[in-house]
Amino acid sequence: MEIGFHNLEDFIRGTTILGTGGGGDPYVGKLMLLEALKSGHKIRLIDPDDLDDNARVINVLSMGAPTVINEKLPSGPATIFAVRAAERELGYKFDAVMPIEAGGVNSTVPLLVGALMGLPVVDADGMGRAYPEVQMTTYNVAGKSGNPHVLADDKQSTVVTNTLDNHDAEWLCRAVCVRMGGIAQMACHPLTGREIKDHAVLRTVSLSIDIGATIREARAAGRDVFEALLSFFHARGRHAHQIFEGKIVDLLRETRQGFSIGRVVMQGIGASKGELKIVFQNEFLLAEHDGRPVAMVPDLITVLDQDNVDPITTEHLRYGQRVRVVGIGVPEIMRSPRALEIFGPQGFRLGVDYQRIESLVA
Amino acid sequence: MEIGFHNLEDFIRGTTILGTGGGGDPYVGKLMLLEALKSGHKIRLIDPDDLDDNARVINVLSMGAPTVINEKLPSGPATIFAVRAAERELGYKFDAVMPIEAGGVNSTVPLLVGALMGLPVVDADGMGRAYPEVQMTTYNVAGKSGNPHVLADDKQSTVVTNTLDNHDAEWLCRAVCVRMGGIAQMACHPLTGREIKDHAVLRTVSLSIDIGATIREARAAGRDVFEALLSFFHARGRHAHQIFEGKIVDLLRETRQGFSIGRVVMQGIGASKGELKIVFQNEFLLAEHDGRPVAMVPDLITVLDQDNVDPITTEHLRYGQRVRVVGIGVPEIMRSPRALEIFGPQGFRLGVDYQRIESLVA
Repeated sequence: MEIGFHNLEDFIRGTTILGTGGGGDPYVGKLMLLEALKSGHKIRLIDPDDLDDNARVINVLSMGAPTVINEKLPSGPATIFAVRAAERELGYKFDAVMPIEAGGVNSTVPLLVGALMGLPVVDADGMGRAYPEVQMTTYNVAGKSGNPHVLADDKQSTVVTNTLDNHDAEWLCRAVCVRMGGIAQMACHPLTGREIKDHAVLRTVSLSIDIGATIREARAAGRDVFEALLSFFHARGRHAHQIFEGKIVDLLRETRQGFSIGRVVMQGIGASKGELKIVFQNEFLLAEHDGRPVAMVPDLITVLDQDNVDPITTEHLRYGQRVRVVGIGVPEIMRSPRALEIFGPQGFRLGVDYQRIESLVA
Repeated sequence: MEIGFHNLEDFIRGTTILGTGGGGDPYVGKLMLLEALKSGHKIRLIDPDDLDDNARVINVLSMGAPTVINEKLPSGPATIFAVRAAERELGYKFDAVMPIEAGGVNSTVPLLVGALMGLPVVDADGMGRAYPEVQMTTYNVAGKSGNPHVLADDKQSTVVTNTLDNHDAEWLCRAVCVRMGGIAQMACHPLTGREIKDHAVLRTVSLSIDIGATIREARAAGRDVFEALLSFFHARGRHAHQIFEGKIVDLLRETRQGFSIGRVVMQGIGASKGELKIVFQNEFLLAEHDGRPVAMVPDLITVLDQDNVDPITTEHLRYGQRVRVVGIGVPEIMRSPRALEIFGPQGFRLGVDYQRIESLVA
C-alpha cells in the first residue's frame, strides 16, 4: 500500500483524531510529506504480517512540545542522522522504519524518513494513539528495552543513551531535547518483525487513513460527519460516544520542561450542562464533568470543532471555540495492569483510578 | 612516580590552590584516594615524556556543581563504566587516564580511576587549573574535538554525545548531568601521547604535590607560609602576588543550571583599603577592587585563610572569614588569543578585556 496525493489528506485528518490533541499541527506534517511526494519519493506501507520475523525495524520520531514543533519543524535529514547513529551503535542496518505513536506529526515523520531513505514504513505503532513521553509504549509494557535512544539535531549533534529503565531514557533525553531547542529528532526501540507482531498496536497507519476517509466521504455525501465518525469506531468494535458539547471559557497552556502543559474548561451548551475540564500534557489526559471523571488515558479524548468536526490540537485551543468532545475506547493491549502503570492515570500521576470509557457513559 | 600515603596530603592541598575555589571539597577527594590506597591499589603517575606518541589516553572527571559533589560523591565504578563505554564507541582500549583539570576533586577522580583500573595517570591536564565547563581546555584551543563525551551514573545509564563543536557537548551534557542528579561521571577527549605532549598543560599533578609540600615544609619549619607559597611560584617563573587582605562581608551563592554561581565581597583589613568583589562560577573568575579589575581568568585567583594559609573553596566561603587573596599567572599556552576566547573573560562573558595579572599590580 502507498500513501500518495490521493489519500494524504485522509491520513492527516485521521492522525489528528488519534493524536487526542497532541502531536503538533497536522498541517506541518502534511507539508513535509507533500514536499517529499512532489520530489518523486514514494511512501510505502508494509503490513506487519508481511514482515519477516527477523526484519530489523527502528522507531523514528520528533521529541518535543507541540508548541515548539509548530515553529521549528521536524527535520528529515536530522532524523536520518539519528537512524544512522543507531545503526552504528547496533552494528546492523534497518529494513524498515515505523512510527512510535499514531497521532500528529509523529505519524508523518516516519513516512518522511522512509520515503527519503527508500525504506518501507510498518503499518503499526507502539502507542495506539499519541502520548507525550517516549517510554509510554506497548513495547515497554512488554518489558522490551528501548535502547539505544538516539537524539540528533540539525547541528549534526548526536546523543546516544543506554539505560536499564526506559523511563530513565525519557528523563535524560527530554533534557537534551530542551537543550537542542525544544525539538530533537529521535531513533529508538529497535524491533524485530516478530516483536512488532507480538507487541505493537497493529495497522494504525491504515486506520488513520480510514478515519480520514470516513470524514471526507460523509462531508461529500452531506451526511452527519459526527455520527459517521462514531459509527466508524462502533463498526470496528470500539466504544465511542460524545462526552460533552460546550464553549471554551478558560484556557491555561504553558511550555514547561519540554512539554506543552495546561488545562481547558468548557461551559455546556445544547444538551450538556455544567462544566467540563480537560487537563493535558501535549495530549488530553483526563476529562472531568463537574469534578467527576468522564474519560481518561489510555482512552482517547478528542476535541472536535462543533461545525466542521475537524479535530482541534491542544495548541489550537482558543477561548470561545464551540466544540464537541468525544471519548473513544482503545484496544485491550493498551489496558492491561502494566499498561495502565506506564500510560494510564498512574503513569501521569493524575490521582484517579482508571475507569474504562464505556463504564463512564452518563 | 607514585602517589601514596606519604604525599597524598601535599597533593590534595596543592590541587586546592590550583582549583581557584572550585572543584569541590578536597577532603572528599582525599577520602576516596585513602580508601583506594588502603585497599592496596597503586596510584602510578607517568611523565608525559615517557608516553609513547601513539599511546591512547582518556580524560576522566566528575561533571557537576561543587555544592552537589560534596553531598553526592564521585563514583569510581560509574567513571569506569563511562570509560568502558568510550572504549566501545572508539573501538580501542586506553593505555592511561588523565585529569582534564588541575584542581579540586577532578584532580583526584583520575587517580582513583587509574588505581582501580590498574592504569597509569598522565602527569598533565587540559586546563592548568580548574574551570567550570568541559570545553575550556587547551585541547579545544588547539582545535581538537573532545568526542565522544560520555556520561554515566550509578544507575548504569550512559549517554554518549558527538558534536561538531565542543561547546555544544558542554551544553548538552550539562543538562544530562543535572538530570543525573547534579553530578555525572565523565570520560571524554581521547588523546594520543603526541597530542598530550603538544597541547596539554604539563606536569600539573606533580606541581600540585610540590605546592602542597612547600606549604607543609614552611609550617614545619615555622617559616611564613604565605611568603613561602609566593616564593615557590616565583622560583617557577610564574608571577604571584597578594591582591587583597580582607574580611568577608557579603556572600551570594546559588546552585543554578548545574553550576555553583555567585559573588563574594570583602572589606579591606591591614594594608588593604576599600572592597574586593570576586564573582565565581564554580571557580573564582574575576576580582575587582573598588570596581577596578585586579585579576581575572585564566590567571588564578586563590582565597586563603589568613591564619593557616589553607585555600578556601567557593562553597566554604563564610561571612566574617578573614582571608588573603592571591593572584597567580598561568603558562603562556593558556593566554593565546584563542585560549582567551574559550576560557578568558570573553569565554565567561565577563564584560572586561583580559589584562595579565602581572600588569595589574597596584
